[in-house]
Amino acid sequence: MSTDTTPLSSTPRTRLRRHHERGASDRDALYEVLDAGLICHLGVVAGGVPVVLPIAYGRDGDTLYLHGSSANGAFGAADGQRVCVTVTHLDGLVCARSVFTHSVNYRSAVVFGTATIVADEDERWQALRVITDHLIPGRWAAARQPTTKEMAATAVLSVPLAEASVKIRTGMPKDEPEDYDLDVWAGVLPIAVRFGEPTPDPLLREEIPLPAHIRDRLST
Amino acid sequence: MSTDTTPLSSTPRTRLRRHHERGASDRDALYEVLDAGLICHLGVVAGGVPVVLPIAYGRDGDTLYLHGSSANGAFGAADGQRVCVTVTHLDGLVCARSVFTHSVNYRSAVVFGTATIVADEDERWQALRVITDHLIPGRWAAARQPTTKEMAATAVLSVPLAEASVKIRTGMPKDEPEDYDLDVWAGVLPIAVRFGEPTPDPLLREEIPLPAHIRDRLST
Repeated sequence: MSTDTTPLSSTPRTRLRRHHERGASDRDALYEVLDAGLICHLGVVAGGVPVVLPIAYGRDGDTLYLHGSSANGAFGAADGQRVCVTVTHLDGLVCARSVFTHSVNYRSAVVFGTATIVADEDERWQALRVITDHLIPGRWAAARQPTTKEMAATAVLSVPLAEASVKIRTGMPKDEPEDYDLDVWAGVLPIAVRFGEPTPDPLLREEIPLPAHIRDRLST
Repeated sequence: MSTDTTPLSSTPRTRLRRHHERGASDRDALYEVLDAGLICHLGVVAGGVPVVLPIAYGRDGDTLYLHGSSANGAFGAADGQRVCVTVTHLDGLVCARSVFTHSVNYRSAVVFGTATIVADEDERWQALRVITDHLIPGRWAAARQPTTKEMAATAVLSVPLAEASVKIRTGMPKDEPEDYDLDVWAGVLPIAVRFGEPTPDPLLREEIPLPAHIRDRLST
């Protein structure tokens, strides 16, 4: 779909660096986009070629944590390497009068950094808590904690939020002036990600009610 | 979020090759995941580092077409290079009794191939039609067609569906046998991407009604 503002493209609008920040608003925007996401897409070069993996993640301050399996080769290949972590929200399809000015409303964060497989057991524990509670706040404390064996089967990647770009498009199409007279419908088809009604596990013991942290998640 | 089945990981379950196909069902699953997506994430190595970009796309037979701007450096860097195109649907959060067995329900397609900037004007035209109609079937014919100048500002990348993996997780958590007695709620929080009510452009001429192809899109 052609676009007037090259949405969903790569040009960073906001670069955040540890020692040269462009202001709180940039960083706040980055946090907002990251915190509102459910999964990210991790880009890593493995065996010489780029691999893009959908992965669960969480944010702790200026660190992103990504969850993987110790058995995952491409995930392990990221250790010590430059990676790219992208979180995208698609908010709407922007229907313009001309094909070329069609666009999409979206928010995206593209983070570049050197990934590290977290080795410290305390940080690993904390990272898994962050990732779990990112998806469902309060879930970590509600569930049975990991055993040593389970921890060993889990890999955690950390990526610093040193360099990132945030791009946001909102609003209506921007058509060429002469196209506004055309007999073509124009506007936005909003898109939203919604939780449905929770489906209890058929093996769930009957007396266990839906907990508050799940109900709370549904209303976000 | 720890997982029992390493969802959102990289291990391909299905590889499709031109001369060694594993059956129609694999390919059908690939088509289904790709055709149900709205945007993809393109992974490309640019300047030696991986870049992951959210991008509009469409499928024409066994070719993926991705839309970009001619001015987009990372998009241009993909020409002649191995890339990875990933389409992910997040279908639910799987709440298990233990943190470790938490998971997500999802469908993902990971396509590996050598990308080509499409040069042939007829193919470029067709590709843009495919991408536009992928997002909203029928939209291409309803809108004003591109001019030569607009076509020149648009880049199209083609990626063959020669090598791809499809991964799908559905259903309930798979807890350790001894954990089923725990006092922890378990089940699935379904997630769906939904279109909202179309918002007409405030500058839309009053007499133009909502067209059938937009109404049809909302019901999918």
